[in-house]
Amino acid sequence: MPILPEPVQNLINALERLPGVGPKTASRLTFHLLRSNDDLPNQLADALKAIRTATGTCQTCFNITVAGQTECDICQDEHRDPSSICVVEEPLDVLALERTGGFTGRYHVLHGVLSPIEGIGPEDLKIRPLIERTRQGTIREIIIATNPSMEGDATALYLHQQLIPLGVRVTRLARGLPMGGDLEYADQNTLLRALAGRQEMS
Amino acid sequence: MPILPEPVQNLINALERLPGVGPKTASRLTFHLLRSNDDLPNQLADALKAIRTATGTCQTCFNITVAGQTECDICQDEHRDPSSICVVEEPLDVLALERTGGFTGRYHVLHGVLSPIEGIGPEDLKIRPLIERTRQGTIREIIIATNPSMEGDATALYLHQQLIPLGVRVTRLARGLPMGGDLEYADQNTLLRALAGRQEMS
Repeated sequence: MPILPEPVQNLINALERLPGVGPKTASRLTFHLLRSNDDLPNQLADALKAIRTATGTCQTCFNITVAGQTECDICQDEHRDPSSICVVEEPLDVLALERTGGFTGRYHVLHGVLSPIEGIGPEDLKIRPLIERTRQGTIREIIIATNPSMEGDATALYLHQQLIPLGVRVTRLARGLPMGGDLEYADQNTLLRALAGRQEMS
Repeated sequence: MPILPEPVQNLINALERLPGVGPKTASRLTFHLLRSNDDLPNQLADALKAIRTATGTCQTCFNITVAGQTECDICQDEHRDPSSICVVEEPLDVLALERTGGFTGRYHVLHGVLSPIEGIGPEDLKIRPLIERTRQGTIREIIIATNPSMEGDATALYLHQQLIPLGVRVTRLARGLPMGGDLEYADQNTLLRALAGRQEMS
């Protein structure tokens, strides 16, 4: 005999499919939603229903945009420098960079990284549109902001080889010790990179 | 200018209202749902829409039940001992106890604990129905399984005072060191309780 009524078990099962949500969290969330007095379950359901239908992809940078809009707000913004392009793996990375307020150029979202193990090659990513964008001649610098991982580095290397012949400056985000980090706890690779990338104090 | 399209921000905002979900987790979940190829957003939305409409409350023990059903499966099960009642705070506690497989009686869900600070008194909990259930004469033992917290203890004490005059045996779940726990890391109160509740080895 099942312990829980079917609708309750259904919600637990659906929540468990989210990344980082285990059986315990799923039941805790379900019972919270069951008990709460507000309209949260319905509001969450409506937001979920809209997430795919009401969003689209920017045809220039491939960031997420409102459905029916050809270009995203950043690509449409004339105050954003069109000569500087930051290449990221995922739309979430755009958000992280925008939050810093330190970048005034535009973006290009690859939607993944090269991964021979998972069978992801250059054709599976938005690399060809980036090359076409670069060929148009407005772009002067391309900042590669893929993750500091094996795949991110391989993708950065591949992009560098493809873009350099087009006469643009290709840069990569700096590696080193994270702010607030502890030298003692930094891993070997990070420390090696921090040493290799040491800079003159001014 | 908002960084994210409205439908994306809406889902992040709704997810952030869940307990234990912060801004970072909310955006990570949102982008996962946006990117995933399966039908998870819709399945989750449907499960959420059903969670309130398709469930009800058992009129005997106040556990969660399927909508339209007066009594829950446990209360309807003739194999479950009607003379032993386990009193818990929330439906989730029923689930935890059922998973142990160590209890063959029935339940009573209080739907909260006494909390003078939050203004929750006996009338706000399912205490009166428990007293009425006990007066019917079938119940011989009431196991109080409220949480081992200040409020849980206060509620247990109150229930004990109310139930003892009705001629039932009132017990409380044992306190002590948790299984796999480390004496060295046990807090003072747990250790005091474990000492006070020490038992003859047999």
